[in-house]
Amino acid sequence: MSQAVQAVGSTEDIALYVEVQQFYGRQMRYLDEGRVQEWAKTFTEDGMFAANAHPEPARGRTAIEAGALEAATRLAEQGIQRRHWLGMVQVDPQPDGSIVAKSYAVIIGTPLGGKAAVDLSCDCVDVLVREGGALLVRERQVYRDDLPRN
Amino acid sequence: MSQAVQAVGSTEDIALYVEVQQFYGRQMRYLDEGRVQEWAKTFTEDGMFAANAHPEPARGRTAIEAGALEAATRLAEQGIQRRHWLGMVQVDPQPDGSIVAKSYAVIIGTPLGGKAAVDLSCDCVDVLVREGGALLVRERQVYRDDLPRN
Amino acid sequence: MSQAVQAVGSTEDIALYVEVQQFYGRQMRYLDEGRVQEWAKTFTEDGMFAANAHPEPARGRTAIEAGALEAATRLAEQGIQRRHWLGMVQVDPQPDGSIVAKSYAVIIGTPLGGKAAVDLSCDCVDVLVREGGALLVRERQVYRDDLPRN
Repeated sequence: MSQAVQAVGSTEDIALYVEVQQFYGRQMRYLDEGRVQEWAKTFTEDGMFAANAHPEPARGRTAIEAGALEAATRLAEQGIQRRHWLGMVQVDPQPDGSIVAKSYAVIIGTPLGGKAAVDLSCDCVDVLVREGGALLVRERQVYRDDLPRN
Repeated sequence: MSQAVQAVGSTEDIALYVEVQQFYGRQMRYLDEGRVQEWAKTFTEDGMFAANAHPEPARGRTAIEAGALEAATRLAEQGIQRRHWLGMVQVDPQPDGSIVAKSYAVIIGTPLGGKAAVDLSCDCVDVLVREGGALLVRERQVYRDDLPRN
Repeated sequence: MSQAVQAVGSTEDIALYVEVQQFYGRQMRYLDEGRVQEWAKTFTEDGMFAANAHPEPARGRTAIEAGALEAATRLAEQGIQRRHWLGMVQVDPQPDGSIVAKSYAVIIGTPLGGKAAVDLSCDCVDVLVREGGALLVRERQVYRDDLPRN
């Protein structure tokens, strides 16, 4: 490979980027499969989930799990399978050891026997940290594109 | 980079994850461009393609190519360009040397002169193997979200 | 990890693939946030942006910025947030030191207070080069799936 195409990222940055992608794949599957305890455990114990669709952030795993359970129950009753896609990921390690990860999020919903469609498009900003070797979300801020940003 | 953000994946795992992403990009483009022979060759000779939309799995490259040709012919007649996206990929190397790769799949369809839309949302579980240096699909199980899982 | 799952990509190829993904995440966010100067600077000074939707390619950063500004202004007036997703990326380093990157592109549009939907599905072929350490687009060819490819 010629000099011109040499990539500039460090080995650590590359490994981290791939790890974040794997983490998101696993994390959102927990949510979409209604595995709400495992979903909550992808946040830190005091993790925060904020969204411009909610008046107040959910704080802590118990609140995050309760929110996910409510949504999962409603979707199951409606016979809707949701899939959360995170993409266009940017991973920026911070001096304090945390990681800011920005991504686009799109939610695809499919009713049983019906037609798949885009339900929502969002902007997602995470602060990730490592605890006991694993990445966890310390803060997630989701901005739905159909609602005012603040 | 501080200790806290050190990624934990091995170099081999990272390389494999990227390779699977590249493989999927190439493989699904074969399908979407109607290159059905090249598509069939991304499966092992005895590869299996199963879907909850089909009563029986397609077994072997000949059957897989025939299925793809039928779909490509129908779409060409209808003037529809399909694009298969696989995302939210999770790659898990197995003790036997195979690789389980789970992903979400969304199919975008666009009629010539018409409007793009989500055609289908699916869950995709692959068993990949390496033959002669290249990744191949030995088993693919696709679950359309609009149909019962079994 | 057994021999069978050893990935075959070189360390440079892997790093480059991840770098292209990060680059696309950053680049398209510039466009979607209306940061048109920063967007234009992700192209080489003489960069070309061609599309089967346009009679002539935009040539050079000034033209590329002007095109983006026009689109951003129109979308802002309409209250529409667009998100450009590039996925299914294939990265192929060339002997001359440039990089051919093929991807699928989908544009999700959301009107404020309205419903998100797929606006467009496209095929995207880039020629990337490295200048001063950073990846830049020297040529981008976008093929909208709803229009003849030419």
